[in-house]
Amino acid sequence: MRVGNLPGIRRLPMYLSLLRRFHDEGHATVSATALAARADLVTSVVRKDIEMTGAVGTTGIGYNTAALIADIEAFLGWDNPFDAFLIGAGCLGTALLGCKGLRKQGLSFVAAFDADPAKVGKTVHGVEVLPMEKMPSLAQRMHIGVGVLTLPSGQAQAAADALVGAGIKRIWSFADEVLRVPEGVVVQREDISAGLAVLLVRSSDQQQAQRRP
Amino acid sequence: MRVGNLPGIRRLPMYLSLLRRFHDEGHATVSATALAARADLVTSVVRKDIEMTGAVGTTGIGYNTAALIADIEAFLGWDNPFDAFLIGAGCLGTALLGCKGLRKQGLSFVAAFDADPAKVGKTVHGVEVLPMEKMPSLAQRMHIGVGVLTLPSGQAQAAADALVGAGIKRIWSFADEVLRVPEGVVVQREDISAGLAVLLVRSSDQQQAQRRP
Repeated sequence: MRVGNLPGIRRLPMYLSLLRRFHDEGHATVSATALAARADLVTSVVRKDIEMTGAVGTTGIGYNTAALIADIEAFLGWDNPFDAFLIGAGCLGTALLGCKGLRKQGLSFVAAFDADPAKVGKTVHGVEVLPMEKMPSLAQRMHIGVGVLTLPSGQAQAAADALVGAGIKRIWSFADEVLRVPEGVVVQREDISAGLAVLLVRSSDQQQAQRRP
Repeated sequence: MRVGNLPGIRRLPMYLSLLRRFHDEGHATVSATALAARADLVTSVVRKDIEMTGAVGTTGIGYNTAALIADIEAFLGWDNPFDAFLIGAGCLGTALLGCKGLRKQGLSFVAAFDADPAKVGKTVHGVEVLPMEKMPSLAQRMHIGVGVLTLPSGQAQAAADALVGAGIKRIWSFADEVLRVPEGVVVQREDISAGLAVLLVRSSDQQQAQRRP
């Protein structure tokens, strides 16, 4: 079962960037060892992660660089992006709409929604901001695969309920709350506040440790 | 040692949002059990996480809501933000500059830097974009505590080296590569591509599982 190796899945986008650099540098083949060295990992981990994608290398030669890139992209679904709705056209939401790189990573924004009348009607990075009420009917008509939530705390659960009600089964949430969804719906939470907290606490710990005799 | 409980540190910002909601709802005290129910966690985990911050509750009553908020904020350093430089004024960088909420989470942007002459000289959300060459001398003069890297893959290591050279000991990196830094420098990596990969692979797995007889 592929979902058993979540850390491996998380590493695949990094392998892709590294492999593209190998490719640009003219390496037609790349070994798991060479990839592991640039990724700062042990070779066996890299080999196992790549195995998950179905890519096959040749003993003593390694992987064909271009073929491995294509295999990983296909495994991740990056060759066939999902149409997505963005809910919450605030600071982070606006940024995600402008990140054209997401299209190459399996996500294509077709519309954004916001409850704030001041934001509705605007076009952000080529994507129109519509009123929340229009979301359910449009989601069904347009066969939307992913809902991206970039709402302030306290508003995300109601929006998640609306996405689920509209038949959307994948939610990428940047809200800092735990969302309750029915079985069959997958939620992936990105909590950048959590990462920042870890950075600041770890660094203050380290300074205390250094100050100790 | 506080850094031993990284998952607990990651949860503290979520507790803060929940506690602010309890406070707004008029709850002068809150029990670990009530907090755990909203956070979808077991009470013992919440209690242990809060213990790390030094906050003390009363048996049978719980924590004073306002005091607990203040204790967690102080533990996270949110009451005393670090001055930060942003490196890379692209789509994500621009968004972070506009996220005023980060100031309340311990991070205050004082300048942004970019190697692209087309971006230099612009003011983004009130923060000026300066040429990369100016970064080292300004970092030292302004006692910058955190460097935030929002650069495309392949450019982050050189920028990290420059930040370290300028005496910055905390790097918050949104690049998808592994950064090599000397001992004493803390790097926290946020890899949103990795989260998106997990969402799309998990959901396609689930659909395959559902299709099985």
